[in-house]
Amino acid sequence: MSYEPTYTPPPAEAIQALVDAVSFDAAGLVAAVAQQHDTGEVLMMAWMSREALAETLATGRVCYWSRSRKALWRKGETSGQVQRLVEARVDCDGDTLLLLVDQTGVACHTGRHNCFFRALRRGEVATLSRPLADPEALYRA
Amino acid sequence: MSYEPTYTPPPAEAIQALVDAVSFDAAGLVAAVAQQHDTGEVLMMAWMSREALAETLATGRVCYWSRSRKALWRKGETSGQVQRLVEARVDCDGDTLLLLVDQTGVACHTGRHNCFFRALRRGEVATLSRPLADPEALYRA
Repeated sequence: MSYEPTYTPPPAEAIQALVDAVSFDAAGLVAAVAQQHDTGEVLMMAWMSREALAETLATGRVCYWSRSRKALWRKGETSGQVQRLVEARVDCDGDTLLLLVDQTGVACHTGRHNCFFRALRRGEVATLSRPLADPEALYRA
Repeated sequence: MSYEPTYTPPPAEAIQALVDAVSFDAAGLVAAVAQQHDTGEVLMMAWMSREALAETLATGRVCYWSRSRKALWRKGETSGQVQRLVEARVDCDGDTLLLLVDQTGVACHTGRHNCFFRALRRGEVATLSRPLADPEALYRA
């Protein structure tokens, strides 16, 4: 039997309790690390506002805050590469979230499965993985 | 045969190349996510300055920047709970690092193995794990 994680939105009071456990920074944001729930792959890091976190918890679909666009960023809205929430965890200081997610397709805007694809190899900064999707196609209007 | 990861410090030019691949923020810092290299457990998130990253790459022992103490924070200096670097990866935008590490003991100052131990259970923010070490003992002078 294949297991598909499901997400049951918690009641509004529970969402509020989790949001209240977070220490948002001076800009009203908290760092959120997305990890694929089953493989443990760290996919990306982005930022959430209070509203983004509450929406994510209420809908089960991950919504960040885009610092460049200064707007809610419903991951996959344009590209279709959505992240379904499995669980949101808060760290000891309340200033970082770990999102256990189920990633559809690729997490990175370059078309790679995750964003952490550069490291030193033979004394140079090398690219460790190839795009699995064409970024042009992902973001075509 | 048991495998122990080893870290060979790269030449100074390579360290510089990796540091140059990072976009430090207005405060001169970059977010760094530490992941246990073999289990995939996300341990913690902290910040690195240019100097902290260069020292980490040169020594193979993870050094962060403490925003509260405004000083280099050689992880485990007081507590003995050091992180040995296996590999530092840079993300697509250069504004987040993923540190594959080998954690000695516990990563969290509460004595828990990782910092992400709070999540919703039955409508409340619950603590998911117990301390494995006594924080009082870890930080005794």
